[in-house]
Amino acid sequence: MVSIRHRIHMEPEIAFEEVKTAALVAETLRSLGIETRTGVAKTGVLGILHGRGPGRTVLLRADMDALPVDELADVPYRSRVRGKMHACGHDAHTAGLLGAAMVLSELRDSFDGCIKFMFQPAEEEDGGALTMIEEGILESPKVDAAFGCHLWGLMEEGKVAVSGGPVMASPDVFDLEVTGRGGHGAQPHLTVDPIMVSASIITAFNNMVGRRVDPLVPCVVSVCSISGGEVHNVIPEKVIMKGTIRTLDEETRERIPKELEKLAVGIAGSMGATANFIYGKRFPVLINDEEMASLARDAFRKHADPSDVSDNQIQSMGGEDFAYLGQHVPSAYAFIGIAKDGKNPVLHHNPYFSFEDSNMKLLAKGLAQIALDFLSE
Amino acid sequence: MVSIRHRIHMEPEIAFEEVKTAALVAETLRSLGIETRTGVAKTGVLGILHGRGPGRTVLLRADMDALPVDELADVPYRSRVRGKMHACGHDAHTAGLLGAAMVLSELRDSFDGCIKFMFQPAEEEDGGALTMIEEGILESPKVDAAFGCHLWGLMEEGKVAVSGGPVMASPDVFDLEVTGRGGHGAQPHLTVDPIMVSASIITAFNNMVGRRVDPLVPCVVSVCSISGGEVHNVIPEKVIMKGTIRTLDEETRERIPKELEKLAVGIAGSMGATANFIYGKRFPVLINDEEMASLARDAFRKHADPSDVSDNQIQSMGGEDFAYLGQHVPSAYAFIGIAKDGKNPVLHHNPYFSFEDSNMKLLAKGLAQIALDFLSE
Amino acid sequence: MVSIRHRIHMEPEIAFEEVKTAALVAETLRSLGIETRTGVAKTGVLGILHGRGPGRTVLLRADMDALPVDELADVPYRSRVRGKMHACGHDAHTAGLLGAAMVLSELRDSFDGCIKFMFQPAEEEDGGALTMIEEGILESPKVDAAFGCHLWGLMEEGKVAVSGGPVMASPDVFDLEVTGRGGHGAQPHLTVDPIMVSASIITAFNNMVGRRVDPLVPCVVSVCSISGGEVHNVIPEKVIMKGTIRTLDEETRERIPKELEKLAVGIAGSMGATANFIYGKRFPVLINDEEMASLARDAFRKHADPSDVSDNQIQSMGGEDFAYLGQHVPSAYAFIGIAKDGKNPVLHHNPYFSFEDSNMKLLAKGLAQIALDFLSE
Amino acid sequence: MVSIRHRIHMEPEIAFEEVKTAALVAETLRSLGIETRTGVAKTGVLGILHGRGPGRTVLLRADMDALPVDELADVPYRSRVRGKMHACGHDAHTAGLLGAAMVLSELRDSFDGCIKFMFQPAEEEDGGALTMIEEGILESPKVDAAFGCHLWGLMEEGKVAVSGGPVMASPDVFDLEVTGRGGHGAQPHLTVDPIMVSASIITAFNNMVGRRVDPLVPCVVSVCSISGGEVHNVIPEKVIMKGTIRTLDEETRERIPKELEKLAVGIAGSMGATANFIYGKRFPVLINDEEMASLARDAFRKHADPSDVSDNQIQSMGGEDFAYLGQHVPSAYAFIGIAKDGKNPVLHHNPYFSFEDSNMKLLAKGLAQIALDFLSE
Repeated sequence: MVSIRHRIHMEPEIAFEEVKTAALVAETLRSLGIETRTGVAKTGVLGILHGRGPGRTVLLRADMDALPVDELADVPYRSRVRGKMHACGHDAHTAGLLGAAMVLSELRDSFDGCIKFMFQPAEEEDGGALTMIEEGILESPKVDAAFGCHLWGLMEEGKVAVSGGPVMASPDVFDLEVTGRGGHGAQPHLTVDPIMVSASIITAFNNMVGRRVDPLVPCVVSVCSISGGEVHNVIPEKVIMKGTIRTLDEETRERIPKELEKLAVGIAGSMGATANFIYGKRFPVLINDEEMASLARDAFRKHADPSDVSDNQIQSMGGEDFAYLGQHVPSAYAFIGIAKDGKNPVLHHNPYFSFEDSNMKLLAKGLAQIALDFLSE
Repeated sequence: MVSIRHRIHMEPEIAFEEVKTAALVAETLRSLGIETRTGVAKTGVLGILHGRGPGRTVLLRADMDALPVDELADVPYRSRVRGKMHACGHDAHTAGLLGAAMVLSELRDSFDGCIKFMFQPAEEEDGGALTMIEEGILESPKVDAAFGCHLWGLMEEGKVAVSGGPVMASPDVFDLEVTGRGGHGAQPHLTVDPIMVSASIITAFNNMVGRRVDPLVPCVVSVCSISGGEVHNVIPEKVIMKGTIRTLDEETRERIPKELEKLAVGIAGSMGATANFIYGKRFPVLINDEEMASLARDAFRKHADPSDVSDNQIQSMGGEDFAYLGQHVPSAYAFIGIAKDGKNPVLHHNPYFSFEDSNMKLLAKGLAQIALDFLSE
Repeated sequence: MVSIRHRIHMEPEIAFEEVKTAALVAETLRSLGIETRTGVAKTGVLGILHGRGPGRTVLLRADMDALPVDELADVPYRSRVRGKMHACGHDAHTAGLLGAAMVLSELRDSFDGCIKFMFQPAEEEDGGALTMIEEGILESPKVDAAFGCHLWGLMEEGKVAVSGGPVMASPDVFDLEVTGRGGHGAQPHLTVDPIMVSASIITAFNNMVGRRVDPLVPCVVSVCSISGGEVHNVIPEKVIMKGTIRTLDEETRERIPKELEKLAVGIAGSMGATANFIYGKRFPVLINDEEMASLARDAFRKHADPSDVSDNQIQSMGGEDFAYLGQHVPSAYAFIGIAKDGKNPVLHHNPYFSFEDSNMKLLAKGLAQIALDFLSE
Repeated sequence: MVSIRHRIHMEPEIAFEEVKTAALVAETLRSLGIETRTGVAKTGVLGILHGRGPGRTVLLRADMDALPVDELADVPYRSRVRGKMHACGHDAHTAGLLGAAMVLSELRDSFDGCIKFMFQPAEEEDGGALTMIEEGILESPKVDAAFGCHLWGLMEEGKVAVSGGPVMASPDVFDLEVTGRGGHGAQPHLTVDPIMVSASIITAFNNMVGRRVDPLVPCVVSVCSISGGEVHNVIPEKVIMKGTIRTLDEETRERIPKELEKLAVGIAGSMGATANFIYGKRFPVLINDEEMASLARDAFRKHADPSDVSDNQIQSMGGEDFAYLGQHVPSAYAFIGIAKDGKNPVLHHNPYFSFEDSNMKLLAKGLAQIALDFLSE
């Protein structure tokens, strides 16, 4: 498991380019005698392990893609690819799920039903999970529940948290184009100044969370990019903006983009300009099923100090495309601590991101136990 | 003329309350054998002086109302009425026009045509000139031209300025009511916060002059009053605002209120609130006729050092209801300096406002000369 | 208990005027043979019940004050005082705690230690709890833990929720005065327009929650009142604003007022004006002790369907001065449902606020049980 | 003169690249027997014509540079250089001044004193006039007055306007960099969002003209360019803006950049960011000397219908580096109409800009007459 992780870590591959990683995964699964489908969602791999008799089907999921980050961590298995790095732990997610597959493949005569191992591409940006679902991985046999884990830099080593309810946000985006009428900077009255209009819209967007969202409901609206005009004395025709909208509940997710669009269009219109607001839906809110979360906690407690396994609700405004699985079957997503101590969190997506291989053990054992417990229920 | 001015100054009367002033004016006119109508526009007085034969008709105008200001000027003829004061020189305008009437009544056998003396109430706020026009003072005989003067604290004694074109602004007003949905300050998401909406509208209004008006075209938009809510933790239902819009040309005057209303309604609507913008038209822009201005300059040059009489375009964002006369007949409004020296302007509407009686001489002579010159053309 | 509630309901008394209510409370406590101190924090009452022998001391708390609301609820015991009403359930809190006192006074030979009954004035606005603490109610004998309940209109009848952690907000306030330089609306350049400055500050304040507060940390900043200027054409010297700042954690509570002040002072200064921001600290965040919450849940489960008693974290941006007790001793504050069904919440502070008397039973029994359980630990 | 204009028009050269144009100018001047210095300010040319005896010195100025515009005008002498065009009439200014030189060189025995012909490079952007002054063209002999003309598309053919006072603006610029602290769009509270800060500053800048500048004083502040951030979910570190500040008086010009800097620095600071405002002074305000303007009017009246030559004050928020001459010697800059009729202005800097050659005649004659009249005074 450790050597697999290191091999993956040294050859990081980003979204939909996980060719070597997928080959390593498929080869390992096949060596375990697990039925293996490759090329699902381009570079995804699906393993199918049948137990001794008929029963339910549980899916365990890992993500394989790396990030476009230049590694600066001082580890022997440092990335050999300039500008790419496993800075979010997907290398260990993949190796850990292979570890679970190793354990479970040996126990195939001790459980009824079926275990699917989902190794997905492109979690970071493109939602590879969705494509794999669309290509049918939840069918034949039909999946009854799904589980996944994230090694988590903000929690101490050895600790596990799985709770019901929302845990990760919908990381939606928007594009906003404001069109006025360009002209000379010395004659603003002959123009419709899109920079003025955009400043007004940005300010209104920044009021949204504080005025239009329940203070007890997490939500983010961030305008992250703006561009318009080139020289000192020409008012441009257009300004282009980009941003993100994040929530932890689908009602707010539904409502906010509509209010933002209404604001942008209304403000621009009141100033003689037009605004084109394009909302880009990304992953859903990741909402854990209460029962599946409870099952997962019980399974982890068999391999960790029970008091280290809590129902603390980890919540993050980051997104996670595991959420697509939760839209189809009851599911739970667990967080496994990797911080050396509570005061020194390991920062995900950071060039120095690194953690001990030993943390994979709990991930592998936990996922294997979850599968066994689910199937024996 | 001086004693008349002092009598008026000591008994200042504000808009439509000019009873004693009107009585003094009427009595003086009658004593000069001038046909006198009182009670025009409530407290206005019209004198009609016919010359030796038929001819054109010229109107000379003065305003009689005082201001609700407590006089602090140290003059022997200080206001005897608490809270009222002739702080804009209307006492001298009235006395000066009576002086012109004295001169002209003696010359009635030397000119053809007719001279009307208009002593109007309520220049400061209510536009008494309009009411007098509506009550027919420009008819029977029909007036062919109108002239008036303002003693001017920003110009030196002895100087006169009369130019063609716009000289004083349209002092229009607006009322703006923003209605949201009130609620508890701890639950902004259940409200539509009219204070937030109003702040956005005010900011947009403050952008108007700099972005939507030709930099070479004078314009003012000022929000001067705002009120909404009472306590620390209840978001109110409404916010009420008041303001002024001033321009020196009718095109801008026509356009700006529409753009402001569009802004208010559009911004409020984009935020889920409603805005009710009520535009209040006041006096028109005072625009001098080029020919009448030229005639007035020539007349003044007969009584002043010719080089002291200029076509410098005095412009002010203040309003002047003489402008209503200009809408009906060619007219010119002259400014006569009263500052002791150029660096110490006399501030109108100020409790210390004061100037030498001697300045009335030029006003009286100028107006009389204008009338004679106009009728002899 | 029911008749006591009705008597209190019909004679509602607002903050620090709870004279009749306090008399009724004191009379009832004394009739039960409970040592009774009156006049604590003006109109507060403290009952002290000693058990059979020495032990710990537990405090049970109710609030007695009504609201300045005109009752519209159609109940036989409707308020007889125009403009005052028990619209938050304090009548039942008081009657319920007296009910607990009845039970406990009979059991005085079955427990060791001491039970204090705190009937406080002025919860709604003035923080009567603080004054009672300052007058020593936590001493002689020293209190070891404190408990209280709120009947809760947003939860169904029969349900109880007590969780550890923050449950009610710090309802702090601020006053903000912006001073510019007044002047004529036609001459904005000679003024420093405090309405423009205030609009900018309000807009910046409204950006605070969305930009400067962790989306996972509840916080409210609301400007609830604004006032400046009177007429259409005079820019005022000052604008006065009021608002509220609410958080559920003390770190955010500490930080936000400082950032708001920095914003107000900085923005005003950049525009040539001055801002005076006065922060008014009110009740602390109400934070339940995890152990005391657990003890309370166990106690309630003895008198309710155990599955109806949860650790759901009720959170509200409203304030509760019970929080002052939590600053001195471990404490827990429980919520007891009174809604007929989940879809029809009963709105607190509403003129139609009303609920069944029967809900008091659970409150009385729960509090009595909590006291017994705490003392027997 | 016509063929010279056409040659220049067909070979347009932009700022400091006027090599062919300068060669043609120098060759023409020399052919007239006028002392000619080339290479002044890189590509500028100075002609010096001495009259019969000693006297004063007058300078006549033309500008030679073209614009980076692709000509679309349908004229036989259309630009032969892709992307360059004489779209502001400098071809005719140059040819016209050569025409004046032709006339004056023949009259050299009829006047006393000296005439300098200044053919400057780089009027449009770089202020070639300043460089020529710095290289000494106003010395040896010392220049006593300077004159120039602009063919003007907003005025009818045959009309001339020269007035005292400010006629063209100071076209200054600014660069503004706002530095916050970048971070993830999902965690705005860990960042200092420079886009939010920039929106606030832009809005404040847009309030400047309407609130802080006398409505009777022309001024423009335009933010013309903004750029910050690249992707949807990363809040950038910096935002960069560019803009222009234009005034028609030096007092306002002095004050506004300071107020803008104060606003930017103050607002940024209040939000935890920093702003770096860099003000770029460009040409001064072009202010005509009253006497020189009067002299120019009289001169033009000798070659045009006198009533077509007015003291109408052409004012434009555009800049003109002739203004540098006015800082050293009394000067006047005249506008000569080229519009076929008043309702169809010819737009400068437009690819279709074009006008009749015949208009050069008045320019050449007027300038020649001005020189003669000045020297004969």
